[in-house]
Amino acid sequence: MGTNGMPHVVHVGLNGGPTYWNVWASKYVPTGHAVSNLADIKLIVFDVDGVLTDGTIIVDDQGTESKRFYVRDGFAIKAAMSMGLKVAVLTGRSTRAVAVRLTELGVEYLIQGSHNKAVGIETICQMAGVGLEETAYLGDDLVDLPAMLICGYPMAVADGVAEVRGEAKYVTAVPGGRGAARDAVEHILKAQGRWDELVERYAI
Amino acid sequence: MGTNGMPHVVHVGLNGGPTYWNVWASKYVPTGHAVSNLADIKLIVFDVDGVLTDGTIIVDDQGTESKRFYVRDGFAIKAAMSMGLKVAVLTGRSTRAVAVRLTELGVEYLIQGSHNKAVGIETICQMAGVGLEETAYLGDDLVDLPAMLICGYPMAVADGVAEVRGEAKYVTAVPGGRGAARDAVEHILKAQGRWDELVERYAI
Amino acid sequence: MGTNGMPHVVHVGLNGGPTYWNVWASKYVPTGHAVSNLADIKLIVFDVDGVLTDGTIIVDDQGTESKRFYVRDGFAIKAAMSMGLKVAVLTGRSTRAVAVRLTELGVEYLIQGSHNKAVGIETICQMAGVGLEETAYLGDDLVDLPAMLICGYPMAVADGVAEVRGEAKYVTAVPGGRGAARDAVEHILKAQGRWDELVERYAI
Amino acid sequence: MGTNGMPHVVHVGLNGGPTYWNVWASKYVPTGHAVSNLADIKLIVFDVDGVLTDGTIIVDDQGTESKRFYVRDGFAIKAAMSMGLKVAVLTGRSTRAVAVRLTELGVEYLIQGSHNKAVGIETICQMAGVGLEETAYLGDDLVDLPAMLICGYPMAVADGVAEVRGEAKYVTAVPGGRGAARDAVEHILKAQGRWDELVERYAI
Repeated sequence: MGTNGMPHVVHVGLNGGPTYWNVWASKYVPTGHAVSNLADIKLIVFDVDGVLTDGTIIVDDQGTESKRFYVRDGFAIKAAMSMGLKVAVLTGRSTRAVAVRLTELGVEYLIQGSHNKAVGIETICQMAGVGLEETAYLGDDLVDLPAMLICGYPMAVADGVAEVRGEAKYVTAVPGGRGAARDAVEHILKAQGRWDELVERYAI
Repeated sequence: MGTNGMPHVVHVGLNGGPTYWNVWASKYVPTGHAVSNLADIKLIVFDVDGVLTDGTIIVDDQGTESKRFYVRDGFAIKAAMSMGLKVAVLTGRSTRAVAVRLTELGVEYLIQGSHNKAVGIETICQMAGVGLEETAYLGDDLVDLPAMLICGYPMAVADGVAEVRGEAKYVTAVPGGRGAARDAVEHILKAQGRWDELVERYAI
Repeated sequence: MGTNGMPHVVHVGLNGGPTYWNVWASKYVPTGHAVSNLADIKLIVFDVDGVLTDGTIIVDDQGTESKRFYVRDGFAIKAAMSMGLKVAVLTGRSTRAVAVRLTELGVEYLIQGSHNKAVGIETICQMAGVGLEETAYLGDDLVDLPAMLICGYPMAVADGVAEVRGEAKYVTAVPGGRGAARDAVEHILKAQGRWDELVERYAI
Repeated sequence: MGTNGMPHVVHVGLNGGPTYWNVWASKYVPTGHAVSNLADIKLIVFDVDGVLTDGTIIVDDQGTESKRFYVRDGFAIKAAMSMGLKVAVLTGRSTRAVAVRLTELGVEYLIQGSHNKAVGIETICQMAGVGLEETAYLGDDLVDLPAMLICGYPMAVADGVAEVRGEAKYVTAVPGGRGAARDAVEHILKAQGRWDELVERYAI
């Protein structure tokens, strides 16, 4: 968590750094996909629009933008962190609404304005001190592919585009903004044998 | 109703009181589930997010949060109260939008910011002078389980999570925010033989 | 249209007038349902929540309320008026959002805050100079029954409650807020042999 | 792009110009529908309400209007322009929210307040220097028919009204506001053999 209780916020653009950009430009062969055991996953990275939301962007006549998050996704994100998993958010757009909601949830790593998600996920892994092969990513659209192709465990939302679902090791049962993040967290915690531990906190 | 026409608002946190917290920590065996006759239900308690709403939380760039309620749920809540049933609302989050809407409906008992819903529902029962065994609760997610497991008649919304639906004596036919509260009220009033009385107010 | 271009706005409460209220209290036998020919319909009255909207009420932390209307319903309302049908709106709640949207559409007759819709529809018919038997009404919930039972042609939205659908001479194919008003207008204009006239304005 | 980075905004009313209006009034026989090869399409024109949105119009108590756009439609519009296709928007209503969102996407041609879409699409074609026969249009309601009937490639959204779907050469698989614009762009780029080129930008 940042020194002031806000998430680490990094805005990465197309000139996000020569190293990453060069990697991208040279069609770097992904070293991900090496994970055979979900037990190794230490970090889950979520896209925002279409993943933590249903992809709708509400704009009013004053130019104010709103997003619709889902309360059970928020519960799952907090639960995952309370059980030791790290959670990050990586998005190509940039809105204050995202920072507000993620601060409420206590999410520590947030990159907005990322035009190259391969750069973005590598930056997050460095910040979090976690390897790419220990990282899962949940996406919905073409711009998520670069992150999905280099992380350890790529996942897609149920209503993701065909190209993205095709690259995913796991496709959630529900669409973005309607529990996809919850489903992904549940999928990983169950594979790690820890879901029951969460339920038992509430089932007295 | 509070002295100023607003609902009784109580914010209960994890330190909501040693008595309740001890009960919770010692895995108190629920004494609920003893009701065999819905005619004994005197109080209905609703969760907010995912029950009175569809679970979406709208956040704008100014950090203002909005919720979407359903007009027929509001009608049912007012109708239930007009027929002598007590209605309360118990939620883990805390927003002014909830207070605004519930004040409009005339709901008398509201607890926001409840991190332990076993504590919350017991507090509401004390405020309302109703026994836990005379109380129904409508929930959707894991955090609702502690309240559901100690009340007389636990109910779940159609799109509630599996663990919650599994503990419910009644699962509504429609999802949260789309008439689940209306369905629950109708279910109880019909079991009490009083639904026709309500319809006849309008069917001249 | 009112002198300032705004709709005629009348707020009718439970004390809306002794004549109407007495009629209501004495279980006045409806004289409606006498229309055998939709060609006689001169006025269509719409409920708002659940009919012109999907029934959701959006409330923010400042207490500001929003409603979601449907653009094709608006088109149908304007088209109906352009072909000589009168259009009115009758709602039990009262919000400025409704006045704003209906003013944009040019709707001439609007009653908000109506707690007795039998009183409400009779008032509208007097304002519009149209008989109850020449009036159609589109509703969704129990509070609409008093208006439906005394008008010439009661209609219900596809997702209306069972009691309301049961009293309707026509149930729309689509739910409230998703084209139900459009469907009702189309239904009446087709029965009057005038729908093609509308389409031909656009099919050059 | 306009001199200040905003889209070209033209408000065309019923008196949008004698030439166009005369054409319209005289039931001008459309010369469109002549395109046999989607490869000739150089310009895609989108309606707003019901096409770039799901047709809902959100109005609050201050009279502020909001619209809900879909992030994947925005991605497709930007992608189409990055591959050399021209994109325009033509709508009968007029809101600042549309200008805000389209400016963010970099859309160059925007006409709001168009009461005659035959006039509107001809004006856009002149601005863009593209022939009507090289222009595709995506609509949903009767008011879109005049534009659809004179352009080279009329398309309808999945939930468009029957009369509009009947005139379309292509009906999208998904409804307005939920990917219809994305589907239309994908349909055209695939027919032009260029979709894979887009995917390969992201599939390293």
